[in-house]
Amino acid sequence: MRVNAYAAPAAGQPLAPTTIERRKVGANDVLITIEYAGICHSDIHTVNGDWGPQPFPVVPGHEIVGTVTEVGPAVTKHQVGDRAGVGCMVNSCRECANCRNGDEQYCLNGMVGTYAATDRDGTTTQGGYSTHVVVDADFVVSVPDGIDPAAAAPLLCAGITTYSPLRHWNAGPGTKVAVVGLGGLGHMAVKIAHAMGAEVTVLSQSLKKQEDGLRLGADHYYATSDPTTFEQLAGSFDLIINTVSAAIDVDAHLRLLAVGGTLVNVGAPAEPLGVNVFSLITGRRSFAGSMIGGIAETQEMLDFCAEHGIGSEIEIISADKVNEAYERVLASDVRYRFVIDAATI
Amino acid sequence: MRVNAYAAPAAGQPLAPTTIERRKVGANDVLITIEYAGICHSDIHTVNGDWGPQPFPVVPGHEIVGTVTEVGPAVTKHQVGDRAGVGCMVNSCRECANCRNGDEQYCLNGMVGTYAATDRDGTTTQGGYSTHVVVDADFVVSVPDGIDPAAAAPLLCAGITTYSPLRHWNAGPGTKVAVVGLGGLGHMAVKIAHAMGAEVTVLSQSLKKQEDGLRLGADHYYATSDPTTFEQLAGSFDLIINTVSAAIDVDAHLRLLAVGGTLVNVGAPAEPLGVNVFSLITGRRSFAGSMIGGIAETQEMLDFCAEHGIGSEIEIISADKVNEAYERVLASDVRYRFVIDAATI
Repeated sequence: MRVNAYAAPAAGQPLAPTTIERRKVGANDVLITIEYAGICHSDIHTVNGDWGPQPFPVVPGHEIVGTVTEVGPAVTKHQVGDRAGVGCMVNSCRECANCRNGDEQYCLNGMVGTYAATDRDGTTTQGGYSTHVVVDADFVVSVPDGIDPAAAAPLLCAGITTYSPLRHWNAGPGTKVAVVGLGGLGHMAVKIAHAMGAEVTVLSQSLKKQEDGLRLGADHYYATSDPTTFEQLAGSFDLIINTVSAAIDVDAHLRLLAVGGTLVNVGAPAEPLGVNVFSLITGRRSFAGSMIGGIAETQEMLDFCAEHGIGSEIEIISADKVNEAYERVLASDVRYRFVIDAATI
Repeated sequence: MRVNAYAAPAAGQPLAPTTIERRKVGANDVLITIEYAGICHSDIHTVNGDWGPQPFPVVPGHEIVGTVTEVGPAVTKHQVGDRAGVGCMVNSCRECANCRNGDEQYCLNGMVGTYAATDRDGTTTQGGYSTHVVVDADFVVSVPDGIDPAAAAPLLCAGITTYSPLRHWNAGPGTKVAVVGLGGLGHMAVKIAHAMGAEVTVLSQSLKKQEDGLRLGADHYYATSDPTTFEQLAGSFDLIINTVSAAIDVDAHLRLLAVGGTLVNVGAPAEPLGVNVFSLITGRRSFAGSMIGGIAETQEMLDFCAEHGIGSEIEIISADKVNEAYERVLASDVRYRFVIDAATI
């Protein structure tokens, strides 16, 4: 099946319309007619070659929402006409301890990314900047009716990336959560942590987005460019979700944690970060990392978002604006996620 | 009350016999006739001035076991004739959230160290290399009959420093715990983790102490100087207790953790350590720190050790050998803790 897509032909080249082959629907496969595909910063890193050589041409996109158009005979969970979503992975071994435990993202044999990855059948995966995609039903989630499908697309990466650590480290009533950075990931962390019942503080470089932050659910908003912020908030938080991929002053942020608190990075700068162990030892503090979430947890997150009326804040664009959108993402000029209308691909 | 002690007269000077003043027993105080005082590596750092200027002369020693000789009228928990212990702290504010929570070691107003610290009455504390000490009853623990008093002394620092993170991060049946370094702290971590029911692996620079390690309770023993160790054990452990104060390769050790695992430093190198965030993110791993334990937890640890027949492996010395012992500690030539017989002071 030949379908329309937008692909980067080579590292650093602009994306351009093309056609790609999608596999025949297998016994456990689902064919999705894509409605919306979110633009994630990782898409840009990948096509720019920041993360090493890629199997070009690359069709990015791992925040996919669409309608089920065909299902294989073994599929029971999804039906034609259902609204469905696909996130950052489309396969894993399903046999290792982590897969069996619902942590497919940490598959010991390597999870298969939604694009630019080698699937277990040897083919190269191609992502969601496309009109259709065929995915194993075990890696397709149901998008509940309560969420606008365009606003749901970014939940498949930005949503689960922040939901998973908030859940794992028990954000909820009585806990104080800080979110570092108010971008695509950060604005989801604020909404979700607020919906979980936590007291939410945004730590942003400046107060430029303060009004937005408070509207999205933050209780407090501080500028990290102001050194008094770090004095004022010392020892305050149970959990800090750091959504900034650039290097931060880890020690300064660790000192904002109360005894037993955890600073979780969901982004990863390429360079190692320096950690003064005294910052950890003097308060039984932890510096941790988290990567997306498992499939069952992704479904749980979507159900949670539907229940709490949470979607991403988005700007819908037509596919021919994708390169322009990339420029604006790099300039932090988006509030807070671009979503491609797949009908324009 | 004038009592005998060994003190360092100035930074880097050998310890020498002297006399010091102990305060009159106050309403909530306990006078302890010291029997044994362990030698901790921190004692050496302090008197050498490695940790900054100190209020010399300094009497080190925060692993103290002795007999209660007098109690103030308000003391109910301890009686004359009881065997008692004092660890790394002798006071705290008792009012902050951490003190109220039993985490006096993380007192927000600053816990008072057993020596070289300014007590809340303005006096300078002096440690356990002495014949007697007067301590507020709230910071005195009971040493159960089941433990040899000399072998109990190091439990007050080395024991609680390793017990607390093992308990906090749930070492027990079904968990795999690695202990990095088999010294004063490491050998206690092995004994305690084994008694908790965990499967224990020692990661030591060489296999020199392998026989000891297995005898003390380790199930496995690997040399970190052998690079195949890190390949072989990748993703193995739920918890790693790092007792080495020198800088280790944090990323290499983080990669030994299973999904959700934690590497806990109980020592702190002076220089910041580099952490590649990918080592954390790719397995929801944590890099954490822990410092001694609270008073109630110290009592719990002593009771646990008595129940399981655990003491430190010690070499008892007379006080006039203390400078020689310091040399041997610095040369890692002790298995595994020196304890001063206070009758010789």
